Amino acid sequence: MTDVNIKVIPEGSVCSPIGFKANGIHCGIRSSISKKDLALIVSEKMCSAAAVYTQNKVFGAPITVTRNNIADGYAQAVICNSGNANTCAPGGVKLAEDTCELTAKALGLKAEDIIVASTGVIGQAMSMEPFEKGMPELVAGLNENGSADAAEAIMTTDTIPKYRAVEVEIGGKKVTIGGISKGSGMINPNMATMLSFITTDAAITPQMLQKALSADIKKSFNQICVDGDTSTNDTVAIMANGMAGNDEIKENGEDFEAFAKGLAEVTQYLAKKMAKDGEGATKLIECNVVGAPDEATANKIAKTVISSNLLKCAIFGADANWGRVLCAIGYCEGDFSADNIDVEMKSSKGSVTVCKGSTHHEYSEDEASVILSEDEIIINIDMNQGSGTGTAWGCDLTYDYVQINGDYRS
Amino acid sequence: MTDVNIKVIPEGSVCSPIGFKANGIHCGIRSSISKKDLALIVSEKMCSAAAVYTQNKVFGAPITVTRNNIADGYAQAVICNSGNANTCAPGGVKLAEDTCELTAKALGLKAEDIIVASTGVIGQAMSMEPFEKGMPELVAGLNENGSADAAEAIMTTDTIPKYRAVEVEIGGKKVTIGGISKGSGMINPNMATMLSFITTDAAITPQMLQKALSADIKKSFNQICVDGDTSTNDTVAIMANGMAGNDEIKENGEDFEAFAKGLAEVTQYLAKKMAKDGEGATKLIECNVVGAPDEATANKIAKTVISSNLLKCAIFGADANWGRVLCAIGYCEGDFSADNIDVEMKSSKGSVTVCKGSTHHEYSEDEASVILSEDEIIINIDMNQGSGTGTAWGCDLTYDYVQINGDYRS
Repeated sequence: MTDVNIKVIPEGSVCSPIGFKANGIHCGIRSSISKKDLALIVSEKMCSAAAVYTQNKVFGAPITVTRNNIADGYAQAVICNSGNANTCAPGGVKLAEDTCELTAKALGLKAEDIIVASTGVIGQAMSMEPFEKGMPELVAGLNENGSADAAEAIMTTDTIPKYRAVEVEIGGKKVTIGGISKGSGMINPNMATMLSFITTDAAITPQMLQKALSADIKKSFNQICVDGDTSTNDTVAIMANGMAGNDEIKENGEDFEAFAKGLAEVTQYLAKKMAKDGEGATKLIECNVVGAPDEATANKIAKTVISSNLLKCAIFGADANWGRVLCAIGYCEGDFSADNIDVEMKSSKGSVTVCKGSTHHEYSEDEASVILSEDEIIINIDMNQGSGTGTAWGCDLTYDYVQINGDYRS
Repeated sequence: MTDVNIKVIPEGSVCSPIGFKANGIHCGIRSSISKKDLALIVSEKMCSAAAVYTQNKVFGAPITVTRNNIADGYAQAVICNSGNANTCAPGGVKLAEDTCELTAKALGLKAEDIIVASTGVIGQAMSMEPFEKGMPELVAGLNENGSADAAEAIMTTDTIPKYRAVEVEIGGKKVTIGGISKGSGMINPNMATMLSFITTDAAITPQMLQKALSADIKKSFNQICVDGDTSTNDTVAIMANGMAGNDEIKENGEDFEAFAKGLAEVTQYLAKKMAKDGEGATKLIECNVVGAPDEATANKIAKTVISSNLLKCAIFGADANWGRVLCAIGYCEGDFSADNIDVEMKSSKGSVTVCKGSTHHEYSEDEASVILSEDEIIINIDMNQGSGTGTAWGCDLTYDYVQINGDYRS
């Protein structure tokens, strides 16, 4: 692996790469005028485009339309609303198509070059009216500092907007990758969805872009969990407009690797932000697995651990209940041994080894409680049987999660 | 299928079948003397025995010992403690073996004929001392009305003891089947475990007994869920002492069917009781699936729906958020279509069809809210594509669940 120098751009987002503008407004899909509900991201030039979607058999109408629109590998804009998921809604596909048509017209583009996405409640009919009403304002306000508005407009129960941008050097050229995302987990606790839109000025073919994205999500968005409910609308889309001027990435090699590393920096950052902002969450839980038979198993184990309701409650209560870690490892599917597992719990306040060789390791409960009272908790697991490593991110399970989801629609 | 007449025995339990005695005492495994922690169930005659265990790769030491002891198909007593799971504990297998030895000696039996089980915290060392101290009192107090004490002694965070007994006629003889269980789910929210002990005076071979039990749990205990965490100690064991005098059941046929139906009545009742008593739960959720491609898929869909944290929160909040039902069906693994699903929500206060053909069906939110405010909620799903049916039971997710599990060990 080549060493890649990645520079984080302070407050960078989807407008950091050359040639992208964005905006976000309130158009009336939501009743509260204080919450923006429509976002637009546009590239000056046509982009290579790639996307990955939810694997839920029930999926949003916008996914059907986006899949068609980027089947040729190209797109130039993203239109996304919050407040209604356009899923199990009457006439949903037609509405998503009409939204692309409307957006394309306002931008002077073709409807087939628009990526459309929706997030919010399932099963409620949507109307074109707010889109039609808001489109002129949305397009007129497009600007190079519009990413904060766009990031806000795609939020549902998120408490903070999530954005990131980095610079990497590819073939001697500075390439920028930026992204925004929303959702409180790979699984959106509001039946809305996890969404992420990534922009880059890299020159890269649609095929290599899809390859980079498909590989990337296995170690970023697919490794977070808030509540185990896979949403119907999950979508991660990336657009690359080539304006950085690097030689187009057409195959594996140093350039592709550098791009993948830059991409990972953006996606993993956003994924962690989403886990930490999981509904009702007070803590980020990171689980690192080493010594597993292989990487896939390590990732699965890490994900199983951070998905355990029992562990999530224990971390909320700052309780070093490592038996729950072992229990979760034990019910993870896969071909591995659970006989010689070490577990360490860690935060900025220090670390304790709580389990060694799958049995109790002496530690101070008081010290553990201090460590676990921090808001970023790391659980390090050594399976002691191979070289597979993996990481996953989750959050604690709190009273507020129950409150938010017992009362979402009212 | 033959029609089988099943008679529920009022307040019946493990001592209802002929020849069984039981007892439960506080021996000191728990510090609080007000909570019983050691249970014993003994048959007058040797029993055919069968058991099923957790599939967690990390499992309790008592499971290793019980598996060995009933490998020959026979057992005569069950010894079970609460307060410590004897899992990931140093010297656990030796301790479980010593417990069998001690129990056998006190009863004049062989150690190989004892079923041993433990439930409680993982990873804490156990001592033989309380067992040794308590055994004389436990054995001296064995009696035909001792099942209530036994049912209480195996409880952890359960709020009510769970027991059931029924009579069925097999080959002209009255046969009784009784059982007790503990746990707040297939998955015990306290890292303890789900346990159930079933007794019967039926004459049945060990092979047919195991066959009946293995088939039964797929539609009873395996169809309940509290939090998705599969425990390390789950055990369901059954002992049949033959004292009812029926012709021994050696093969499939009417007699086996009658026994299986009686068994299902006991296990499904206990399973439902456990779901309803899930930690922090205020409501039982029953999900019935019809019209699935096959029975296995129907059961899987029902289980997936009642396992969804989002749906559990919605039911807690009496919110008819049917999109969460469709979302859960959609991420259930299996080969089925999600295009034409009907959903009805129901309780003693009435029923509403909330979704028809996978899209919104007009209903009154007020009426739905009244229906969902009851403490037993039924969700009926028609997949409209085959003849597979299945049922699963769960409970709502509440503030109390978080409280109990954020603070279990302190």
